[in-house]
Amino acid sequence: MANITKKVSWSSRAEESGPAGEGTPLLNGSEQPRQSRQDSLRGRPKEIPHNEKLLSLKFESLDYDNIENQLFLEEERRMSYMGFRCLEISRWVVCGLIGFLTGLIACFIDIVVEELAGIKYQVVKENIEKFTEVGGLSISLILWAVFNSAFVMVGAILVACFEPIAAGSGIPQIKCYLNGVKIPRVVRLKTLLVKVCGVICSVVGGLAVGKEGPMIHSGAVVAAGVSQGRSTSLKRDFKIFEYFRRDTEKRDFVSAGAAAGVSAAFGAPVGGVLFSLEEGASFWNQMLTWRIFFASMISTFTLNFFLSIYHNKPGDLSSPGLINFGRFENDSVAYNLYEIPLFIAMGAIGGLLGALFNVLNYWLTIFRIRYVHRPCLQVMEAMLVAAVTATVSFTMIYFSNDCQPLGPDHNEEYPLQLFCADGEYNSMATAFFNTPEKSVRSLFHNQPGTYNPLTLGVFTLTYFFLACWTYGLAVSAGVFIPSLLIGAAWGRLCGILLASITGNDSTWANPGKYALIGAAAQLGGIVRMTLSLTVIMVEATGNVTYGLPIMLVLMTAKIVGDYFVEGLYDIHIKLQSVPFLHWEAPATSHWLTAREVMSSPVTCLNQIEKVGTIVDVLSNTSTNHNGFPVVAQVAGSDEPAKLCGLILRSQLIVLLKHKVFMELARSRLTQRKLQLKDFRDAYPRFPPIQSIHVSQDERECMMDLTEFMNATPYTVPQETSLPRVFKLFRALGLRHLVVVNDENKVVGLVTRKDLARYHLGKHGLEELQLAQT
Amino acid sequence: MANITKKVSWSSRAEESGPAGEGTPLLNGSEQPRQSRQDSLRGRPKEIPHNEKLLSLKFESLDYDNIENQLFLEEERRMSYMGFRCLEISRWVVCGLIGFLTGLIACFIDIVVEELAGIKYQVVKENIEKFTEVGGLSISLILWAVFNSAFVMVGAILVACFEPIAAGSGIPQIKCYLNGVKIPRVVRLKTLLVKVCGVICSVVGGLAVGKEGPMIHSGAVVAAGVSQGRSTSLKRDFKIFEYFRRDTEKRDFVSAGAAAGVSAAFGAPVGGVLFSLEEGASFWNQMLTWRIFFASMISTFTLNFFLSIYHNKPGDLSSPGLINFGRFENDSVAYNLYEIPLFIAMGAIGGLLGALFNVLNYWLTIFRIRYVHRPCLQVMEAMLVAAVTATVSFTMIYFSNDCQPLGPDHNEEYPLQLFCADGEYNSMATAFFNTPEKSVRSLFHNQPGTYNPLTLGVFTLTYFFLACWTYGLAVSAGVFIPSLLIGAAWGRLCGILLASITGNDSTWANPGKYALIGAAAQLGGIVRMTLSLTVIMVEATGNVTYGLPIMLVLMTAKIVGDYFVEGLYDIHIKLQSVPFLHWEAPATSHWLTAREVMSSPVTCLNQIEKVGTIVDVLSNTSTNHNGFPVVAQVAGSDEPAKLCGLILRSQLIVLLKHKVFMELARSRLTQRKLQLKDFRDAYPRFPPIQSIHVSQDERECMMDLTEFMNATPYTVPQETSLPRVFKLFRALGLRHLVVVNDENKVVGLVTRKDLARYHLGKHGLEELQLAQT
Repeated sequence: MANITKKVSWSSRAEESGPAGEGTPLLNGSEQPRQSRQDSLRGRPKEIPHNEKLLSLKFESLDYDNIENQLFLEEERRMSYMGFRCLEISRWVVCGLIGFLTGLIACFIDIVVEELAGIKYQVVKENIEKFTEVGGLSISLILWAVFNSAFVMVGAILVACFEPIAAGSGIPQIKCYLNGVKIPRVVRLKTLLVKVCGVICSVVGGLAVGKEGPMIHSGAVVAAGVSQGRSTSLKRDFKIFEYFRRDTEKRDFVSAGAAAGVSAAFGAPVGGVLFSLEEGASFWNQMLTWRIFFASMISTFTLNFFLSIYHNKPGDLSSPGLINFGRFENDSVAYNLYEIPLFIAMGAIGGLLGALFNVLNYWLTIFRIRYVHRPCLQVMEAMLVAAVTATVSFTMIYFSNDCQPLGPDHNEEYPLQLFCADGEYNSMATAFFNTPEKSVRSLFHNQPGTYNPLTLGVFTLTYFFLACWTYGLAVSAGVFIPSLLIGAAWGRLCGILLASITGNDSTWANPGKYALIGAAAQLGGIVRMTLSLTVIMVEATGNVTYGLPIMLVLMTAKIVGDYFVEGLYDIHIKLQSVPFLHWEAPATSHWLTAREVMSSPVTCLNQIEKVGTIVDVLSNTSTNHNGFPVVAQVAGSDEPAKLCGLILRSQLIVLLKHKVFMELARSRLTQRKLQLKDFRDAYPRFPPIQSIHVSQDERECMMDLTEFMNATPYTVPQETSLPRVFKLFRALGLRHLVVVNDENKVVGLVTRKDLARYHLGKHGLEELQLAQT
Repeated sequence: MANITKKVSWSSRAEESGPAGEGTPLLNGSEQPRQSRQDSLRGRPKEIPHNEKLLSLKFESLDYDNIENQLFLEEERRMSYMGFRCLEISRWVVCGLIGFLTGLIACFIDIVVEELAGIKYQVVKENIEKFTEVGGLSISLILWAVFNSAFVMVGAILVACFEPIAAGSGIPQIKCYLNGVKIPRVVRLKTLLVKVCGVICSVVGGLAVGKEGPMIHSGAVVAAGVSQGRSTSLKRDFKIFEYFRRDTEKRDFVSAGAAAGVSAAFGAPVGGVLFSLEEGASFWNQMLTWRIFFASMISTFTLNFFLSIYHNKPGDLSSPGLINFGRFENDSVAYNLYEIPLFIAMGAIGGLLGALFNVLNYWLTIFRIRYVHRPCLQVMEAMLVAAVTATVSFTMIYFSNDCQPLGPDHNEEYPLQLFCADGEYNSMATAFFNTPEKSVRSLFHNQPGTYNPLTLGVFTLTYFFLACWTYGLAVSAGVFIPSLLIGAAWGRLCGILLASITGNDSTWANPGKYALIGAAAQLGGIVRMTLSLTVIMVEATGNVTYGLPIMLVLMTAKIVGDYFVEGLYDIHIKLQSVPFLHWEAPATSHWLTAREVMSSPVTCLNQIEKVGTIVDVLSNTSTNHNGFPVVAQVAGSDEPAKLCGLILRSQLIVLLKHKVFMELARSRLTQRKLQLKDFRDAYPRFPPIQSIHVSQDERECMMDLTEFMNATPYTVPQETSLPRVFKLFRALGLRHLVVVNDENKVVGLVTRKDLARYHLGKHGLEELQLAQT
């Protein structure tokens, strides 16, 4: 039986949160012109409530349902079949552009990182070699730590002071965006710039991070920018793609951008498509999928092409992603049936370690939210982590005696001799004197015997905690590569142990395949993706033979991990109290009906409404909704009236701004009729109501909303069960769902927050508290 | 501007089609107990209208929306959280079973085909060798032709006389099922048996067919059977999985089954998932996708495991599918940037050839519908094709002088010396003396110089026409492998020509990769799949390097092909006048509103209705709908009344059968309350109204529908535009959508046929005619 542990009525909640909410009015256009300093303060973790039983009301929703008002229908009806064809072609063009630009960005990041990191390693290596002979290696350590901290400082300052939303990998934010939550400033040009510079700094700064995750965010920003044909930040409007200036179309392009990002990061176009679908889509559309696929394809192709030129092998298209796991040779690839239980066991280990990682990171994040919320503290923490990373690495290199002979093919780029004999190098040093991508590849492909088991064990342990500490810092960085690296290290360790147990039987001889399985297990245990991750791994390794084991491992890791704690991204989404809608309503929620779920009473507007009323309604800071049902005639205060349509705050703002008043229309006959273009020009940053001046005379005028409201909004009867409401809402990506009684009279309104606040907790169905912050 | 070329009101259409419809009453339970003979007559092409401007009314829809009546809600509310967990676990178990059984079936087909074909080739080869010396090869020809025709005859008799729906690959039927159209008898046990035997016969019979397509159908049947926990044909009810006895759940399992089929056929689990999604799904659900993935995984694993035992290499899991394209070695795999235009050109050729194939097959199908509709004619045609195939093959082998030296590794299983010198074999003969799967693999992997260009050219041409003639015969067979074979042949030809033009430059030396590209182009040109086919090809070749070229080729083939004609499956769906819903409403259909689209007037029932009225409504053969809005009080004849709910014909039938009359309930207080189980037991073959006896007294009783109707059906206002109605209908997989006026009174009903009849033709928006046949 469903057990509703907490049930608070909307009205009482509104009272509770009312006063608190006055500080941050929930206006659709709440982005008042502020100082940049103030602006940057807004997204800081200080405002994040650190209670996961809260649901924030500060997030607005995106509207994936077309507003079919008369203007829209007229435009659609005017358009010929050729017009729609052209539109379709321009969608393809935009997707091509998205793919191209995303690929270019990936290429830029890759080249800059490679050059800068190369310089750093060279300098440090020479310094170490100099001081190995004469003693005084502590100077090298300081040099190294200063180098790292300096890079990380630049990155952290950029992120913490200019664009806090650019921190981390950006995947949770993109997940939210695709889910329909408007995270402020997440797809802006400035975010992109900070992200790109930030990720370069943090990777070059030697943090335990990857540059792959941020590519997904970058791709999404590119998509959101290109598809709109203008940049609000640069104040340029190219007057193209105006048709795409609405949430529905923009969402489609953003999913293409995210897919292009994955594709560029891992050279996995199909994996990118699946990522976009797994994380974002609700309604699967074939044409859209193909466009996403196209964007992914172009993205990986662009990256590949420019990197091939950079590597002086123009036309060689064999390194399709930022990370290339290297090709597994066929003989090392074969696996046997009796190895599958082993793989599954490794999946379980990955799930356990992933859960541990997530729990530690969760505590750390709570700590950060409470105590490390000022930019200077954040920058200092990042620098501290960078210095510690350098110190730990240095200590481990220093105390490690794991000397390996220099191979004839010299595949170590920066071999460090240190205290090893001539012709040998320190193998621990290679693990740290490399970008993490190359370390992963070495773990997959180096000959058996390259690594000492003890080295690997210590490395795994250290890197695990370093990576866990690093994720959540105010730097742009991803968690994919560190996870893969940790997993590859303990996976290879497993392989070595197996080989020594079985006495070097040829089957077990290759630890590389166990490194691959371990990497998959660890990553799966942390992020809990299955289908898309399988395909990404398969595409990145260039070999499908391992598809089945990887799937099994990822599933095991997910099942084991989910038993303890959610995935890392979900934890961070929850910590920000985002009203995230999952795939289905909680199983035991058939008890609830729309009547209990909806917000009520609803502020309704008349079809012909007094301007003063509208301004008052919009200015009322305790109003929570951005959509207003339009009714035939508002009767009493609480008497329900017959539904005629639905109008949004943003539309009313535009109407007020253009002063579309009936009296004025009569007096000035020549006044231009308001067009869809006027709404599109204002999209997506509609001005706040405070910025619109309405004189006392004008307040007495009337506005006719008939032409602008959505005359056929989706409705549900008030007896509808929550799962049914949820299904309709989620499948169509709605923002407002009007609840009517059996006479088609408005009795309530269901929004995302009303649905997201029910979730299955440990004690059955729980209801989250709504908070204004 | 939208140009509606034909607009017929529903009422006039109903009159036109009324008399014709009396022969085949459109009842939900129209499957009266008939003779098997009569039964088998029903699905025959005779009844297929050969006008593609018609939309058949004989197909019913599936209902992917849960019927949320009081019984359902009570059950859901009674169920604890653990109950839902158990349900989820049993879904996984069912998916595992589906995968396992599908893999077993694939394994069975593969082994039987290999054994039988081996015997056939051996006998014919010995016979040919005997007569090559002494002359009189015509006897061998006759032997061969008789062999082939005999096998094909068995297959064709099975299909034509016992289960006509088992003809072909079954992919169009499964597409329709997943789209929501109930194709009669498509997921029955008998269909599966006929399909399996039929495909073995037709492959062994040497037709230009593959055994891969039918696997998808087989998987779907297995899924539909296993998930219901009973077999109506075998009259066994295992009393398990009763919860899954409704369209929604069954659809989910059938998509898993189809995916498992693809996975077993091509060893492509991810491709299978994408196939199911690309062809079927509308609402993407993460958990469902994972289950589908699991089924695919188990399926390929099972096949792999049992085949490894059959091949005496137990535990070796390297041949995951029925067809294994063989591994492309790394050195032959590399491609250069300047080859991409070539690949695209090959894609265009594939599109052209594919369109030609489809057009020829379209004409042939029209011819077959008109003239070849009796089972004996169909069997004779199939035998004729078998004999012709044998003759053509023989003639080509006979006249071909393309002798090749026997390789040292002897990779030809049945080398035929014929007139070649000792130590040589006839290379044309290998192309025919092989299952098509092996021929494809030879074309991909054999050394340069194995095939004579002329041989390949003639082979391509012949096989093209043979395959085109074969598809649509009354045999179970797929078109994937013939398409791949044709493409591989002309692709390899291109490769050889390129090599000779460029003077054996090493880049162009390997014709195998062009064979691969050609195969992809040809298959893409015929079936027009992109994303799923790319992944299938990548997984089947075991190499992701060719992912990008294959994608490009498939996209080009699709674009070029779509310019001329639709894909093969779509052509066949259209020829059967199936009310298939595409992804979106036609672009220029914003002109139409629900008012014009809906069927009206609607037969409504009162909440408390007289039994006699219900029986009369259900018995009325001119009634087209299976769903009846329940209203508060039917006023006049045409006066709309307030909507209370929606009830289905099938529910009414069950109510009548159990005599749930108010008077009886009062008199017999102990009468068992009707439960959801009673509805599930009757699913999916509800008895026809004629089989239910209602006495004259009972006709005067009253029935209370309140408890059984869906009290919260989805509704749209009558002003809603067609695209909006379409989106709601398609996204939620509805069967009936009630159209109401602004007072929530029923004015019409939208069903699948109402939406499917608008399509974009050459002259703008066209409306299809509705026909009863």
